[in-house]
Amino acid sequence: MRAEILAVGSELLMPGRVETNASYLTTRLLEIGIAVGARITVADDHALLESAFRTALGRADIVFATGGLGPTEDDLTREAAARALGRGLRRDPALIDALKARFARYGRVMAPVNEKQADVIEGAVVLPNDRGTAPGQRVDVGTGALFLLPGPPSEMQPMFEEQARPWLQARAGGRVIRTHVLKIAGMSESEVEQKVAPIYKTFENPRTTILSHPGLVELYFVADGDAADTVARIEALAAPVREALGDAIFSEDGRELPEVVAALLTERRLTVSFAESCTGGLATARLTDIPGASAFLDRAFVTYSNRSKVDELGVPAELLERHGAVSEEVAREMARGARRVAGADIGAAITGIAGPDGGTAEKPVGLVWFALDGAAGERTRRVQFVGSRDRVRYQATQAVFDMIRKGLLRS
Amino acid sequence: MRAEILAVGSELLMPGRVETNASYLTTRLLEIGIAVGARITVADDHALLESAFRTALGRADIVFATGGLGPTEDDLTREAAARALGRGLRRDPALIDALKARFARYGRVMAPVNEKQADVIEGAVVLPNDRGTAPGQRVDVGTGALFLLPGPPSEMQPMFEEQARPWLQARAGGRVIRTHVLKIAGMSESEVEQKVAPIYKTFENPRTTILSHPGLVELYFVADGDAADTVARIEALAAPVREALGDAIFSEDGRELPEVVAALLTERRLTVSFAESCTGGLATARLTDIPGASAFLDRAFVTYSNRSKVDELGVPAELLERHGAVSEEVAREMARGARRVAGADIGAAITGIAGPDGGTAEKPVGLVWFALDGAAGERTRRVQFVGSRDRVRYQATQAVFDMIRKGLLRS
Repeated sequence: MRAEILAVGSELLMPGRVETNASYLTTRLLEIGIAVGARITVADDHALLESAFRTALGRADIVFATGGLGPTEDDLTREAAARALGRGLRRDPALIDALKARFARYGRVMAPVNEKQADVIEGAVVLPNDRGTAPGQRVDVGTGALFLLPGPPSEMQPMFEEQARPWLQARAGGRVIRTHVLKIAGMSESEVEQKVAPIYKTFENPRTTILSHPGLVELYFVADGDAADTVARIEALAAPVREALGDAIFSEDGRELPEVVAALLTERRLTVSFAESCTGGLATARLTDIPGASAFLDRAFVTYSNRSKVDELGVPAELLERHGAVSEEVAREMARGARRVAGADIGAAITGIAGPDGGTAEKPVGLVWFALDGAAGERTRRVQFVGSRDRVRYQATQAVFDMIRKGLLRS
Repeated sequence: MRAEILAVGSELLMPGRVETNASYLTTRLLEIGIAVGARITVADDHALLESAFRTALGRADIVFATGGLGPTEDDLTREAAARALGRGLRRDPALIDALKARFARYGRVMAPVNEKQADVIEGAVVLPNDRGTAPGQRVDVGTGALFLLPGPPSEMQPMFEEQARPWLQARAGGRVIRTHVLKIAGMSESEVEQKVAPIYKTFENPRTTILSHPGLVELYFVADGDAADTVARIEALAAPVREALGDAIFSEDGRELPEVVAALLTERRLTVSFAESCTGGLATARLTDIPGASAFLDRAFVTYSNRSKVDELGVPAELLERHGAVSEEVAREMARGARRVAGADIGAAITGIAGPDGGTAEKPVGLVWFALDGAAGERTRRVQFVGSRDRVRYQATQAVFDMIRKGLLRS
């Protein structure tokens, strides 16, 4: 089965606006074994919307539309879908009563304009909405269906889970598409490709996709078949890939690096402290974004200036003078200082040149020195990152988390 | 003129993937006065892609497609567009030579598969690509055009700016759509709505849209007409809105709060230090993401535990015992300590309960105390935020930046 998703609403085409419903549905549908062929974001315009419905219904078995089910003049989803299907709309008296009752429950009287939300496409099944006023609709078309769901995620997601998923699952006939993701740190996309291409190229099912993000490479394995079959197929590919990549793989369960580090620290009852220069608190901020962070982090230091590295961390001033703040020697002393002052099990330091200015021929923008001290081993590392200031900073936090993770695994 | 945008690539329909080219083009096109009616993300599938081109070309004057111009079998954009237009493809010998020369420049020999990138749609204008191997194409269709642009933003954006924008601007005929955005902090969406609805409702052009984000409300004014007219129309609406909202408006030039605070500090040659508890370094990280941060930030403290607040900031232990870490008294001492220890002009403190656990009836999750000390005034503030852990943390950093900003403006 093939699906398309229409996200309806002119506001979704405003600058800076990110549409999330279509991404949500894409992931959920893939779990059931339904691939999404196209996602369309459409403005609130009669002709455009009707055309978008017509095209999607012509191409896909399953069409989802989110949004445009409200009571205002801009809410055109019902009318446009009905026209594209060549069916009429009827106003459902029972739905009007339900809407009125909902308003009454909040001590309000329903404005007549809301009656529009009781318009139902001929032959549609109404999908009740406990969380808002706009009911959804399902129209069976051939062996597939058109689903109209409300726009707010807090209403759309439960309606999908409770009223669309069971219907779809019953029709998927046991066939599923299973996606398995290996997250990899400390290697570039081409390094990963080089190691794993000889393996995955011998598999037709699962298919493999490599995605590269700042400080992270993801390997997607996508298998189809019946449920048990896909599990076995993915394992057959994952096993040799794990062997090839070793502990460069940091997660196979969706967790990101800070979550993996937080879990390792919690499990081993260890604490960490950071001394951050160029990252300016970003590593600490990302790690304390994990609930329960007080178990493994007591305090941390943003030491941006040379003077602060001396004052807060006890880095000898003469080391700073001799080697500069971005150096192995200073990184090492920063890590030691963070560990000692915080009374932590692990000290971790980051000092580099995030840019856009401040680089020299010898120490170019993107150069970062890292150091660990304590329970995750004593080590330093030098990395030359590429990219904008925020990209260098983000990649540096990924690198320090990966150092801590590997240090803990190997110690 | 009406536009549609096709983002081509199955990888864009993978879970967790965010498509950015279409958003970029939407914003740029709006600046030129071209509204985007629909954005379509399409998988690498011949039939689907051809149908998507056909539909878009049938509805819009201007169609942009990004991606699918590479050398692999999955790169179908050229073929699909040619078929939808009913035109042929010819392989351009001059382009092959240029591709070979590009490879030679990097000391490599071009693989024959790359010749595919020299396929040009009949009648198309080739758009050279200095930054990658895939050239773009422009096909004039009626009074409009189809643009094929490469997928990587680093190639797509300059190609749009240098080769598409001038062509479009020449055809916009003086009519523009001008968007002006007022960014507002410290007020909820409904507070803003209440103050400004009586004003903007009297204007038909510009139209007004209110968008709410965590810790930020945006007012969009969208005017159309000729260039000078739209400037005057926007000013006629903006003037009374400025009067109504006062210094709650923190930017009208696209800058976010950290940039505004950084500019104020730099301009006044003032330095700030943070004492962060629940935000765990996020405020410092966001402020140091601004280039040149060393001018206004020397050091900062993440003091997560009670003990660290005593050790690093000199908060009296008995205050912590008497009032708890999340209290006005402790926030005030944290701000004073950060200022004193860092030798900064301004000390700023954040202490609260980010959740999901740790709340009590008296101090529920989302409660945050803020304090300022020094050159931006001495003040404290209590805010009860709503939402998830990361949302509470983010909103808390918005709030502390806004306190500093207002403190500086009023001092």
